[in-house]
Amino acid sequence: MSDNNEQLGSLVASVDAFIRDVVIPYESDPRNEDHGPSESLRRELVEAAHTAGLVAPQLPEWLGGHGLSHRATAAVFRAAGYSPLGPVAMNIMAPDEGNMHLLEKVATSEQQERFLKPLASGAIRSAFLMTEPDGGAGSDPSMMSTIAERDGDDWVITGRKTFITGGKGAGFGIIMAKTGESATMFLADMDTPGISIDRILDTIDSSMPGGHAVINLEGVRVPADQILGAADEGFRYAQVRLAPARLTHCMRWWGAAERAHDIAADYACTRSAFGKLLADHEGVGFMLADNLMDLKQSELMIDWCADVLDSGATGTPESSMAKVAVSEALFRVADRCVQILGGTGVSRDTVVEQVFREIRAFRIYDGPSEVHRWSLAKKVKRETLKARQG
Amino acid sequence: MSDNNEQLGSLVASVDAFIRDVVIPYESDPRNEDHGPSESLRRELVEAAHTAGLVAPQLPEWLGGHGLSHRATAAVFRAAGYSPLGPVAMNIMAPDEGNMHLLEKVATSEQQERFLKPLASGAIRSAFLMTEPDGGAGSDPSMMSTIAERDGDDWVITGRKTFITGGKGAGFGIIMAKTGESATMFLADMDTPGISIDRILDTIDSSMPGGHAVINLEGVRVPADQILGAADEGFRYAQVRLAPARLTHCMRWWGAAERAHDIAADYACTRSAFGKLLADHEGVGFMLADNLMDLKQSELMIDWCADVLDSGATGTPESSMAKVAVSEALFRVADRCVQILGGTGVSRDTVVEQVFREIRAFRIYDGPSEVHRWSLAKKVKRETLKARQG
Amino acid sequence: MSDNNEQLGSLVASVDAFIRDVVIPYESDPRNEDHGPSESLRRELVEAAHTAGLVAPQLPEWLGGHGLSHRATAAVFRAAGYSPLGPVAMNIMAPDEGNMHLLEKVATSEQQERFLKPLASGAIRSAFLMTEPDGGAGSDPSMMSTIAERDGDDWVITGRKTFITGGKGAGFGIIMAKTGESATMFLADMDTPGISIDRILDTIDSSMPGGHAVINLEGVRVPADQILGAADEGFRYAQVRLAPARLTHCMRWWGAAERAHDIAADYACTRSAFGKLLADHEGVGFMLADNLMDLKQSELMIDWCADVLDSGATGTPESSMAKVAVSEALFRVADRCVQILGGTGVSRDTVVEQVFREIRAFRIYDGPSEVHRWSLAKKVKRETLKARQG
Amino acid sequence: MSDNNEQLGSLVASVDAFIRDVVIPYESDPRNEDHGPSESLRRELVEAAHTAGLVAPQLPEWLGGHGLSHRATAAVFRAAGYSPLGPVAMNIMAPDEGNMHLLEKVATSEQQERFLKPLASGAIRSAFLMTEPDGGAGSDPSMMSTIAERDGDDWVITGRKTFITGGKGAGFGIIMAKTGESATMFLADMDTPGISIDRILDTIDSSMPGGHAVINLEGVRVPADQILGAADEGFRYAQVRLAPARLTHCMRWWGAAERAHDIAADYACTRSAFGKLLADHEGVGFMLADNLMDLKQSELMIDWCADVLDSGATGTPESSMAKVAVSEALFRVADRCVQILGGTGVSRDTVVEQVFREIRAFRIYDGPSEVHRWSLAKKVKRETLKARQG
Repeated sequence: MSDNNEQLGSLVASVDAFIRDVVIPYESDPRNEDHGPSESLRRELVEAAHTAGLVAPQLPEWLGGHGLSHRATAAVFRAAGYSPLGPVAMNIMAPDEGNMHLLEKVATSEQQERFLKPLASGAIRSAFLMTEPDGGAGSDPSMMSTIAERDGDDWVITGRKTFITGGKGAGFGIIMAKTGESATMFLADMDTPGISIDRILDTIDSSMPGGHAVINLEGVRVPADQILGAADEGFRYAQVRLAPARLTHCMRWWGAAERAHDIAADYACTRSAFGKLLADHEGVGFMLADNLMDLKQSELMIDWCADVLDSGATGTPESSMAKVAVSEALFRVADRCVQILGGTGVSRDTVVEQVFREIRAFRIYDGPSEVHRWSLAKKVKRETLKARQG
Repeated sequence: MSDNNEQLGSLVASVDAFIRDVVIPYESDPRNEDHGPSESLRRELVEAAHTAGLVAPQLPEWLGGHGLSHRATAAVFRAAGYSPLGPVAMNIMAPDEGNMHLLEKVATSEQQERFLKPLASGAIRSAFLMTEPDGGAGSDPSMMSTIAERDGDDWVITGRKTFITGGKGAGFGIIMAKTGESATMFLADMDTPGISIDRILDTIDSSMPGGHAVINLEGVRVPADQILGAADEGFRYAQVRLAPARLTHCMRWWGAAERAHDIAADYACTRSAFGKLLADHEGVGFMLADNLMDLKQSELMIDWCADVLDSGATGTPESSMAKVAVSEALFRVADRCVQILGGTGVSRDTVVEQVFREIRAFRIYDGPSEVHRWSLAKKVKRETLKARQG
Repeated sequence: MSDNNEQLGSLVASVDAFIRDVVIPYESDPRNEDHGPSESLRRELVEAAHTAGLVAPQLPEWLGGHGLSHRATAAVFRAAGYSPLGPVAMNIMAPDEGNMHLLEKVATSEQQERFLKPLASGAIRSAFLMTEPDGGAGSDPSMMSTIAERDGDDWVITGRKTFITGGKGAGFGIIMAKTGESATMFLADMDTPGISIDRILDTIDSSMPGGHAVINLEGVRVPADQILGAADEGFRYAQVRLAPARLTHCMRWWGAAERAHDIAADYACTRSAFGKLLADHEGVGFMLADNLMDLKQSELMIDWCADVLDSGATGTPESSMAKVAVSEALFRVADRCVQILGGTGVSRDTVVEQVFREIRAFRIYDGPSEVHRWSLAKKVKRETLKARQG
Repeated sequence: MSDNNEQLGSLVASVDAFIRDVVIPYESDPRNEDHGPSESLRRELVEAAHTAGLVAPQLPEWLGGHGLSHRATAAVFRAAGYSPLGPVAMNIMAPDEGNMHLLEKVATSEQQERFLKPLASGAIRSAFLMTEPDGGAGSDPSMMSTIAERDGDDWVITGRKTFITGGKGAGFGIIMAKTGESATMFLADMDTPGISIDRILDTIDSSMPGGHAVINLEGVRVPADQILGAADEGFRYAQVRLAPARLTHCMRWWGAAERAHDIAADYACTRSAFGKLLADHEGVGFMLADNLMDLKQSELMIDWCADVLDSGATGTPESSMAKVAVSEALFRVADRCVQILGGTGVSRDTVVEQVFREIRAFRIYDGPSEVHRWSLAKKVKRETLKARQG
């Protein structure tokens, strides 16, 4: 699909309808477990999205999608995020969506055939094994301690990874490991000997299938042709994946925040206290007004950054700006919605409570705000010094 | 005990030691369930507190306590709150602590013997049935729709209550019901026919034994001598309970926020990124500094309000000020601690994640900030108009 | 000019150069008085802009401009605002720019000849007499107490206006007055008998030529052909002027905030404390990063609202959103810049101190944030109720 | 005076009355110039305070005061600050008040006779010459570049100082200069050859007599007996002066913020918009409520820190906490008051506009918030590491 506005509008409308009519009813399904939707629920949802023709629409046509630009993707993913289950159903949830993007850009055609195709269709899930426990690679990737060493035609990987979203139940993982001074990404089936799930973290969020795992890598042997793309390109590939993945997070959670706002607005327009509708209390109405502004600003920030990516730029600073501004704005929205709903807001009677928890985690995932501010400060410094030399 | 500083200091030190040595190890006990610590866990904790001589120390001596002033209570409860389980162990958790206070002030001696004594010792728990579902009494108590009607020597209560903390598993409840234009409080064993637990709400917090229940009251018959104190005094009694109960919430959660701060500070002083300790990054250090200020201001606010209560005043506006300022400050503290811990902060690997969830709920319990701001605005108006007439 | 990107880019570059090379040096001119630049300074600046071909470029070609869209205007005005004197020089300062827009839309051709043409060229200034002292029309226009009454072929206006920007020294004013249940706008030379400047307010800002006046209207007689457009259309015309005028305020002050940011960034990259550049302290660097995000979000919000206006919509809610979000974001930027500069920041040694004061006032001019939040809350309510009926 | 509560209450009441009846009328006196009240105005005010027996009441009795504790001083100074002219009248304005405190603690009796006595009575003013222009001592005193060298029995001082409050018109100054690795404070009449006022800074604030000067020190020769206290003790003496001076700033500006709040509350209770009193709009009422909380928290923070000082501690971290928390809270109060007053708020029609400007500067004076947060972060780190070793 070109980004023809009419076609895009029609796609978004389909997503809207799919989410409201098909997906939202699943939100009360008991298969929504503490560590995310169960595999059975996920498969049922993906099946429904296949029926609706809405699986991974951002992908190129040869992978079954519409070949959307980043900007068009933004409109579609925002609509998908209106339910936390929407991205699961449409197979555009982290980390799979980012992994698909990366594999499409850098994997060999054999790797695409073997790993990307089943991933794109939702037949399997995947994981991205980069973050390490304290002392290893977290916000600072240079601290990576997982190592891959050549052994004949194979590579043997040893290390420990944490916060591996979807690690449990994934078909394969992309493992980032030090190879000398550089780093390399490896593709490995998750049942490769040496890969073991240590435990699933109990986290504040609960929307990601498989939850977040701590994973041990003990002598994981992978053949050289499972190096993703080329050896020693791990840090560069991480950049390829980084900015778009950050931004799709913003898109999806934007939808969730809008949902929370709609629920809060509806509540405020139907419940009364002290003699008038909640919405007629300025204390509540002003919160709704602030939501409106935060949502609009977030939407504009996402679209702007998507345009940057569509222009071919790496979008590293722009996606940092979007990540911080959007995650913090959406958190304010979610927090206000909880507050407007009162007791109901802190209960699971509406999805607002979950949205609040998810977006709290989002402020940390893909780099906490502080790391992005730090790198943006460096950018200001760099440009200021350059201007002085002008 | 008088508020003799030395005795108080020694009591607080005992609480400190009890929490750190005895209570905190229980935090990883699997009997900490989604809806709060199980009854078996609660009993074990209370038993431990009895051994340590630390059950409900604020109570008068005839109830086994030290007869603490509000100000001394503040010091003790802050120490107790250092673990979410501390108040459970020491039997000073909401709603029991507030109920004890109320019963001590207004119950007949027969009622005190029957209801207060077993409550004070931790043999049973209690509930406070005031809040109603949408359309009934929430922030605006005038909307109460539960009704009690005289029938011979009995009263028959009909209505529906929600967010009844500890309702499940409580020995008795204090039921607030409309009696004509006024309201009356009734004491009722929770197994009285007609009282039924509809469901337990799934809420963002998980520290309160029994969780928060929705309760149906269908023709609940209680004899007239189970009217708490006097008939038609319900709204006045609610005021008696209100301000101190708000303030003890502040005290307990202050301790939890301090705990979160200590954990975050420790983390920041042992983990490094980008070549130095987290604490040496101003982005982190400034958050710790802000915690210091928020904790100190909250402590001062609590002590000030406690002094007001000790002076004999009802403390309604002062406790509103304390409730808003303290709950919002503690939430900022908890939020910063989550952020400092990064991925660990949103996982249950430390208690910080729970503290964050609990204090989010605290911003709503006992009146959301907006209701208090509304009543404080009225106070400013009242005093301003009075000064103009001056 | 069409909004051809290349032509626009070239125009903006001309403005940039004009501001930096010609206008900024005037900032230390002693004719910048407490109540704004003197008329002599203003004329000299406008003369310079004529030389550079940069007077009121947004106007249609028959008025000497390039016929810019709102979106193109945004780019030009942001560049112009880089100095508080820029808009004065380019004759695009409030209230003149908004008055030109209004006259172009609704004045008769005779009125345009007599009032608009000399205004457009910068030969004269103008005023907009709407706001009234307490008890009259402020944020709530329905409270207007100035009255115009028919007397033969003339109208006689009586009332009192306040905060009339540029009232002193203006060639003519647009006077809003009640005419029965409606309101009408009148064009009047400022030397019309009965119009008298009561006093010039001492205000926190100081960029507007003529300052802000309190003006008495005592039996001001104007012929019927000086009714702007048609009688009784005052409130509608106010809407015509309103949204674009709000937005051009945002544009101009955006430029000033960017200027403050550039000065602060430069300062932070050249001064050291505690052993390193200020910019290398995260406490400072994070402020610069936040500026970056606030400026980008404000720019996006302005462009979005400009697009709405270009689409032909009235843009009332959109300009409310932009006004609140942008004025508050720019104030945060200015406040951070003051803080980064330390003692220098609160002194007039740089323009940052003025920018801070100006933008503080901006948060009130054209409706304080609270009035806009109030109307946005109404919008949410309206749309929510409509969706429920949907 | 002991801190006898009754006596203190009576003193505070006298101050209240003096400020309201005598001082406030002077606020519209034209001798309030851009760089502060003129010397003639100051003398008239001090004369009035002498008549009322209210000059520098915090000083010991031998200097004409009541020997107030820091805690009692807090109550008195808060009352005095209710007008920006109050501290000028009562001779407790910075930097004189801090200088008196320092001289009382460390000056020789000859120095006290010659410099302190006329200062204490308000016969002369003084200056404190520590801060230096960029590149010298600002927030980081170790960067001091002013040097004093021994020459026979004299010392010769060379350097440049900036932001020297009250420098113009002062009788004497306390000059801080490097003496080898240490620093020494010198007492010098301001007419000593070599001391020259370069210029008076134009600053956002305007309450300090003499404004803020840039001062050149070119071969300023002072005899050895004008070393304040002992040589090489400059940094230690700076600490002696530091914490109490910071705190008295908080006290005085607290009073100003309360004044602003009272004016805003009065305005909100007498003006209407959209059909009701401003105070009845929650958007306004909530701001007043927030003021109430910010004022109370600031008051508590001041009193707590005063108690720390009264206990004999240096109070360095405590006064940092108070300085940051109070200055930021009072700024929020002042900002809200401006907003509530609308157009009037940004005009000099009330004192609120000045209070806003003064408190903006206060967030920088005596160390910007960032420097205090930085040192508080160090304190958290220090104590955390100590606890780990514990």
